[in-house]
Amino acid sequence: MILQLQPAITSSEKQSIVGTLARLGFKSNEVTTQRAHYLVGIGKKEIDIRQLGNLPGIQDIHHVSDEYKLVSRKWKIAHSVIDLGDGVIIGDGSLSIMAGPCSIETEAQVDATIDHLLKSGIRIMRGGVFKPRSSPYAFRGLGIEGLKMWHTKARAAGIKIVSEVMQVSQIADMYDYVDIFQVGARNTQNFNLLDELGKVDKAVMIKRGISGTIEELLSSAEYVFSGGNEKLMLCERGIRTYERASRNTMDINAIPILKEKSHLPVVADPSHGIGIRDFVEPVALAALVAGADGIIYETHQRPEEAFSDGQQTLDFVESATLIKKLKKLEEVVRQF
Amino acid sequence: MILQLQPAITSSEKQSIVGTLARLGFKSNEVTTQRAHYLVGIGKKEIDIRQLGNLPGIQDIHHVSDEYKLVSRKWKIAHSVIDLGDGVIIGDGSLSIMAGPCSIETEAQVDATIDHLLKSGIRIMRGGVFKPRSSPYAFRGLGIEGLKMWHTKARAAGIKIVSEVMQVSQIADMYDYVDIFQVGARNTQNFNLLDELGKVDKAVMIKRGISGTIEELLSSAEYVFSGGNEKLMLCERGIRTYERASRNTMDINAIPILKEKSHLPVVADPSHGIGIRDFVEPVALAALVAGADGIIYETHQRPEEAFSDGQQTLDFVESATLIKKLKKLEEVVRQF
Amino acid sequence: MILQLQPAITSSEKQSIVGTLARLGFKSNEVTTQRAHYLVGIGKKEIDIRQLGNLPGIQDIHHVSDEYKLVSRKWKIAHSVIDLGDGVIIGDGSLSIMAGPCSIETEAQVDATIDHLLKSGIRIMRGGVFKPRSSPYAFRGLGIEGLKMWHTKARAAGIKIVSEVMQVSQIADMYDYVDIFQVGARNTQNFNLLDELGKVDKAVMIKRGISGTIEELLSSAEYVFSGGNEKLMLCERGIRTYERASRNTMDINAIPILKEKSHLPVVADPSHGIGIRDFVEPVALAALVAGADGIIYETHQRPEEAFSDGQQTLDFVESATLIKKLKKLEEVVRQF
Amino acid sequence: MILQLQPAITSSEKQSIVGTLARLGFKSNEVTTQRAHYLVGIGKKEIDIRQLGNLPGIQDIHHVSDEYKLVSRKWKIAHSVIDLGDGVIIGDGSLSIMAGPCSIETEAQVDATIDHLLKSGIRIMRGGVFKPRSSPYAFRGLGIEGLKMWHTKARAAGIKIVSEVMQVSQIADMYDYVDIFQVGARNTQNFNLLDELGKVDKAVMIKRGISGTIEELLSSAEYVFSGGNEKLMLCERGIRTYERASRNTMDINAIPILKEKSHLPVVADPSHGIGIRDFVEPVALAALVAGADGIIYETHQRPEEAFSDGQQTLDFVESATLIKKLKKLEEVVRQF
Repeated sequence: MILQLQPAITSSEKQSIVGTLARLGFKSNEVTTQRAHYLVGIGKKEIDIRQLGNLPGIQDIHHVSDEYKLVSRKWKIAHSVIDLGDGVIIGDGSLSIMAGPCSIETEAQVDATIDHLLKSGIRIMRGGVFKPRSSPYAFRGLGIEGLKMWHTKARAAGIKIVSEVMQVSQIADMYDYVDIFQVGARNTQNFNLLDELGKVDKAVMIKRGISGTIEELLSSAEYVFSGGNEKLMLCERGIRTYERASRNTMDINAIPILKEKSHLPVVADPSHGIGIRDFVEPVALAALVAGADGIIYETHQRPEEAFSDGQQTLDFVESATLIKKLKKLEEVVRQF
Repeated sequence: MILQLQPAITSSEKQSIVGTLARLGFKSNEVTTQRAHYLVGIGKKEIDIRQLGNLPGIQDIHHVSDEYKLVSRKWKIAHSVIDLGDGVIIGDGSLSIMAGPCSIETEAQVDATIDHLLKSGIRIMRGGVFKPRSSPYAFRGLGIEGLKMWHTKARAAGIKIVSEVMQVSQIADMYDYVDIFQVGARNTQNFNLLDELGKVDKAVMIKRGISGTIEELLSSAEYVFSGGNEKLMLCERGIRTYERASRNTMDINAIPILKEKSHLPVVADPSHGIGIRDFVEPVALAALVAGADGIIYETHQRPEEAFSDGQQTLDFVESATLIKKLKKLEEVVRQF
Repeated sequence: MILQLQPAITSSEKQSIVGTLARLGFKSNEVTTQRAHYLVGIGKKEIDIRQLGNLPGIQDIHHVSDEYKLVSRKWKIAHSVIDLGDGVIIGDGSLSIMAGPCSIETEAQVDATIDHLLKSGIRIMRGGVFKPRSSPYAFRGLGIEGLKMWHTKARAAGIKIVSEVMQVSQIADMYDYVDIFQVGARNTQNFNLLDELGKVDKAVMIKRGISGTIEELLSSAEYVFSGGNEKLMLCERGIRTYERASRNTMDINAIPILKEKSHLPVVADPSHGIGIRDFVEPVALAALVAGADGIIYETHQRPEEAFSDGQQTLDFVESATLIKKLKKLEEVVRQF
Repeated sequence: MILQLQPAITSSEKQSIVGTLARLGFKSNEVTTQRAHYLVGIGKKEIDIRQLGNLPGIQDIHHVSDEYKLVSRKWKIAHSVIDLGDGVIIGDGSLSIMAGPCSIETEAQVDATIDHLLKSGIRIMRGGVFKPRSSPYAFRGLGIEGLKMWHTKARAAGIKIVSEVMQVSQIADMYDYVDIFQVGARNTQNFNLLDELGKVDKAVMIKRGISGTIEELLSSAEYVFSGGNEKLMLCERGIRTYERASRNTMDINAIPILKEKSHLPVVADPSHGIGIRDFVEPVALAALVAGADGIIYETHQRPEEAFSDGQQTLDFVESATLIKKLKKLEEVVRQF
């Protein structure tokens, strides 16, 4: 059960509500986000919502049967919108394109990528400076200094930054230099990290786990939201199946299902979703048509020389073509 | 290795080629289809194709490293086209829509469906008369009499029929009444059935196995083609994964991959691919954009009363909307 | 609901029961097996079984909530036993070992295998004469002539035969030469084949599908049982998962679960379950300890020369060691 | 490539080796563990090991083609043994049993469990004080105070403690109170956590990821070992598959495969592996027979009242029976 509280609620009004909830068998979780103030009531009993209706301080009451509550569309039917500032908005019905290399490698690479994005009218750049690698001997990213360099250039160009945060201690270091904290597929259920990102006033994009269910992705988002951060989006990036012809199996079904179950924006990552450069384009187009609010993909001036993920990275010519097709399709889809 | 033979090849020329292949370590499989005459050489050695080049009777030689040969695009880069007659063509670059109920149930149902298809300009109707059911106590279809009734009505309306064949003995019975034999997901590796369908001059659509790989689907198609039947198409219908939010996981990746690996037309089945009525539309649109040559889906005048698969079946209003959107998108995609 | 009928039931008594069931909302399926005579009532209503209790001709009534009925342990708690004759019994609490090559290849191979089995005290030999192969160009088995040759030798040695049947038309041909019809993993849901095996008075072993669920395996067994054949056993042979370090993932869990859900004997196939010769032994031992009634595995005098499956086939020395360990463990487990 | 260095190697000798490796195309990673001093050379070239053989300071050189190096059995054929002190040893050929509740809940619960373990001769107790829960509203464990309480009681009884660490900041807090740090299935690829556990002189048990591959589990272990900690063991705890009849699919295959690929001890967790109380016993016995060095399972005085995982938790009677059977089987298996 979600109780949206009135901004001017008094402490004694709140106590009275919490007490009533307790008598009805519900544990109260107080949540204050950038946008509103909630009590999330957790309990198993079926109650008549009207038993709470008269209590002062309550703005709205919603019964939510899902295990996740605040991210559910059962209480908030309108789709959430995330404003990154400077006119960069995610989830408002337009398509958000996010592109860039797997890893930030060099100043020249950043310059070239920004130049490419500007030419194509793209406002959000992706890139990793902390890289989760299955082998301890692999390249692990440029770290915070790389991020600072990138940030300076991106800011100058009016470009927003989305980059992966791998652990709690990096949040503070990265805070001033990213616009969207990305939680990677290996950290979808790193609950401590999610807890801490709930305390931050910065957008967060949670990738679905390598073999995570849709339900688990939403529960992970609930961690961040219930921690106090509503600036949240979800990302479908393919799941692990028995099929070996592609790196992952892009779960195209997840896009309409997530849009139905949650009010949060849904981004699709076709690069990881299929893992094969030649087929990133059709999968990206399919994801848009299936209802994605954003597309995030890997591009590099010379994919064959990329430090990581070169096999699934578009060059700038392919990237420009993809952007053109995405925009063309977006026009048609918007009329549906 | 595939050797396309000259139509006028003599018996002794053929013997001489087979002998040369044997000396080079290759077993010959002679294949005569509706369209051409081939020798498929199976062997592991790397040979210089020129050793065969001078032999009379050979029109073309192709080295194919895939385990499947005749269905591979490594020897036939042009996409195969299937002509069902009366102007109904699959794989020529236009989108083929196939719609109809899961099961053929009654005359009234067939009449209503045909009426709906005619209004929307659809020329191919799907429907099952032999139903594979996991429980022996479930409805197993109207059988051959149902097919005959359906066929009479469909022919009168200029509609083609695609219907599932479950076993060898049904092929002869169904032959006069279907335009496309469908091999269901539980029979993708029913090799005896595939062998027999190779001997038939009628189109065949092979559905991917419930957890079949792309490689296995192509090998199953090779059975039919090497049996002598080139009128073949493949169908992606979702795979079994751990995710429980949808009935199957539509493998959108499979569409561009199959189009790249094989010259056969690729059809997508969004009804089984997601298994949830409300989301059939976005998955169908995504499949088209990803490159499918055809879309096959379930529609019924009253899905809630359907004998089977009602939960994933569109009503005629939803179906008409889907068709309109598919046609609109097709126009855009064709310009890409 | 399962009604076991009295052997001396009259036709009018039966009609009266069927009529009462119909009034209660249940469709009757009459099943006559080698052992008994049943009516299986299929319906969704909850009824008071006593409404049927007084009707003459009924021996026993059982409510079974599972979708599969006759193979469920909800009505038959005692474990079923299959007697192959000559003292070869499956499911009586002792361990049944079945060993032999993947494919029957030559007379010499059959002689050597029988010799090995006799020395180790094994009474059931496995081997394929019809081989389901993913490629149409691969070796497909010696066929019925191979089976006859094998049968002559096996009978002379007092050895029983288990061999795969791939299609309906082979049942009659194979009938006189096999003791157990094996339904392979690609045919677990070949419902026509299951229907026909229900009409046969010979033991049947159904392998779990390549990615079949436990529920589906039991429903497939229901086809055979409800067709009239109680001489049935189930086989766990590994399932398809994302893991690539082994050919399949042996689902050890399935063994105790199947034993709990069904009264049918459960056989384990460690050769396909792991697919790696060196590890067949530990998986076989584990399966015994987990509760399997039988172990079926591949052995060949020279695995490296086997026509198929050599990589997962034990030589006779390894096989003899495995048998010794299985027997040793069996003694201990029997005391538990 | 792994170079084991001589204890008395000088700094200039080491520099010379690193230089030679660099000239040969190998990057050197220096690793100092509790037991030895290594250089791990990472590179793709095939080199003749003798080019390094004469260099002073090298004790042993091993070529390891696996992506993981130090945990591979390609260089260390003898199985690693972990000594927890007070005669509690893992991996020496005897079976290590670890039992206890999912969550540490109360003093009374800890007392009862310790009492049960002492009666059965078990020396290692499991229990969680930091619980990873998919919902933010679920019980998250007693935290560090719970661990201290537990530690006091366990130490008094001569019982060792294995408990999950969820994040880097908990390592220092927990250090004095645990004997084995457990890395949970959701953290198998939390590389920062693995890095930090590499710096600690305390045993670590890494659980396989929820859908982690065997290869990934070994690479995660490589993180800890290459960080400097050799006191490492692996844990198979079931993987996520399509099958819904059990919580997870216990990958029994993984046990012999891990034992073959790595020298580290392998522990099996049947409680999570099957997730159903009634079947924990057969799966535990199977894991022992398949080659596990240890068995870890959940037990509680009243499973139906456990704060978490009650459905897969044994009561003390069942636990005592399991221990007896494990010990009986161990005797037999040891003779093999």
